[in-house]
Amino acid sequence: MNTLTVGLVQQRCCDDRQENITRSLQKIREAAARGSRLVVLQELHCSQYFCQTETAACFDLAEPIPGPATKEFGALARELGIVLVTSLFEKRAPGLYHNTAVVLESDGSIAGRYRKMHIPDDPGYYEKFYFTPGDLGFQPISTSVGRLGVLVCWDQWYPEAARLIAMAGADLLIYPTAIGYDPNDSQNEQTRQREAWVTIQRSHAIANGIPVISVNRVGFEPDPSGVGAGAQFWGHSFVAGCQGELLAMADNDHEQVLVVDLDRERSEQVRRLWPYFRDRRIDAYGDLSRRYRD
Amino acid sequence: MNTLTVGLVQQRCCDDRQENITRSLQKIREAAARGSRLVVLQELHCSQYFCQTETAACFDLAEPIPGPATKEFGALARELGIVLVTSLFEKRAPGLYHNTAVVLESDGSIAGRYRKMHIPDDPGYYEKFYFTPGDLGFQPISTSVGRLGVLVCWDQWYPEAARLIAMAGADLLIYPTAIGYDPNDSQNEQTRQREAWVTIQRSHAIANGIPVISVNRVGFEPDPSGVGAGAQFWGHSFVAGCQGELLAMADNDHEQVLVVDLDRERSEQVRRLWPYFRDRRIDAYGDLSRRYRD
Repeated sequence: MNTLTVGLVQQRCCDDRQENITRSLQKIREAAARGSRLVVLQELHCSQYFCQTETAACFDLAEPIPGPATKEFGALARELGIVLVTSLFEKRAPGLYHNTAVVLESDGSIAGRYRKMHIPDDPGYYEKFYFTPGDLGFQPISTSVGRLGVLVCWDQWYPEAARLIAMAGADLLIYPTAIGYDPNDSQNEQTRQREAWVTIQRSHAIANGIPVISVNRVGFEPDPSGVGAGAQFWGHSFVAGCQGELLAMADNDHEQVLVVDLDRERSEQVRRLWPYFRDRRIDAYGDLSRRYRD
Repeated sequence: MNTLTVGLVQQRCCDDRQENITRSLQKIREAAARGSRLVVLQELHCSQYFCQTETAACFDLAEPIPGPATKEFGALARELGIVLVTSLFEKRAPGLYHNTAVVLESDGSIAGRYRKMHIPDDPGYYEKFYFTPGDLGFQPISTSVGRLGVLVCWDQWYPEAARLIAMAGADLLIYPTAIGYDPNDSQNEQTRQREAWVTIQRSHAIANGIPVISVNRVGFEPDPSGVGAGAQFWGHSFVAGCQGELLAMADNDHEQVLVVDLDRERSEQVRRLWPYFRDRRIDAYGDLSRRYRD
């Protein structure tokens, strides 16, 4: 089997940046020691999820790219000889910030970046305050382990994003994520939300015939304003194969390093018999660029 | 609760057209007696799945619309006061045939039709020989029970189709289907395929915040040519709610009538907190109308 071994780091975050980074570095080492050649971190792993409030001071958490984080993570990628997917709060210019995934090559260089295109905004997830919508489009990032279809969190609800990056040749889809339960929701609602989150990402694997790696944070983070009930990040980081089948899944509330073998030849096999790209009705899809068909 | 009760008819088909229709009529009566105001039949329910071979004589199975089937099913829709989704082999002109879903209004009239847009072709499913790709686009059909987003089988693998019909105001998605196991496949492969089929349709509910009704045939049908191993249609007709949650599912190998209550107000509630339509990056979706981004 022509295998790519991938590692997922699901972790808690505290309000100490260096401690978060130290813990990430440690877990990346563990993933590499267990054979991973590609390691994926969760969304905004250097800090707690600051978007629970709209607080101007939180822009201080942002940093340029390249910057301190890409330097530190790049050095480890180089030391371990792995490709590393990080998720950073990018300061592009004064007053211009992005939610940006940065891929570090095994020589420590920056292979590419993806700026989150779809920005959510709902109670406790006030991202539109912080993040300018991405302007780099849906382009896979070429690395020594393949063309990575890196998208971020809210993008995972949009089949359009997965399709476009797959159509540009992505070998796999990668979603660093920060999503959690509202503690005020009923358990049934919480379960529906979590299962929807898994289901729609599995569907992107199916529709496009490529694996999906999704890495979510874990643990409770209080709302600093005291207004909301806080966020209980639900973990459940997972890997799905080219038919959407679950290959591995982390649990609800523990830090965890998942290491999974992907069969690099499976995509070609699956797409031969499920040739969805062949039959797309591109003559009839024009209205996908409209807001609504009214 | 503002409820719509829907009925799904999962059945076997034999090589006797009138027997298939008689059995459908009987099960529609059962669904109506159990409260259904909308009843959905499986794909091409008047016959066995003739696309296992490419046989010119099978075009004799087609009929005009309106025609004998719409007359017979329309009369029952009127008698029972229900809306009925049928799936017919449409003869439009000599040499021009479609795989067409026809919706019958509760007064027996034809509310509208949908011609299958995505046509598959793989061993045992030689549909490109029989069906000209639809030319009516993705338009919901307005009825007394709502705007029905009717699509057919292979369409279910295309998020584009679900999105476009939802963007045109569909209140729910409906997929008459004929899909089965290849008996030569391993059980693991069969399970992956069936779960992929469920997962991707649930994802359309999630991405668009509307329920999904999928009705599949059941039973073994041999390959008349003796070349293939035949098709073991896997049933598993199901209804999913606006978050993709499974509300009911039929089994693998029995004829079954499912009756399910849908909450008509749920879609509005779900879309308020999961407002995917708000954040679509229509400025960046143009390439969805391309074959591939190379």
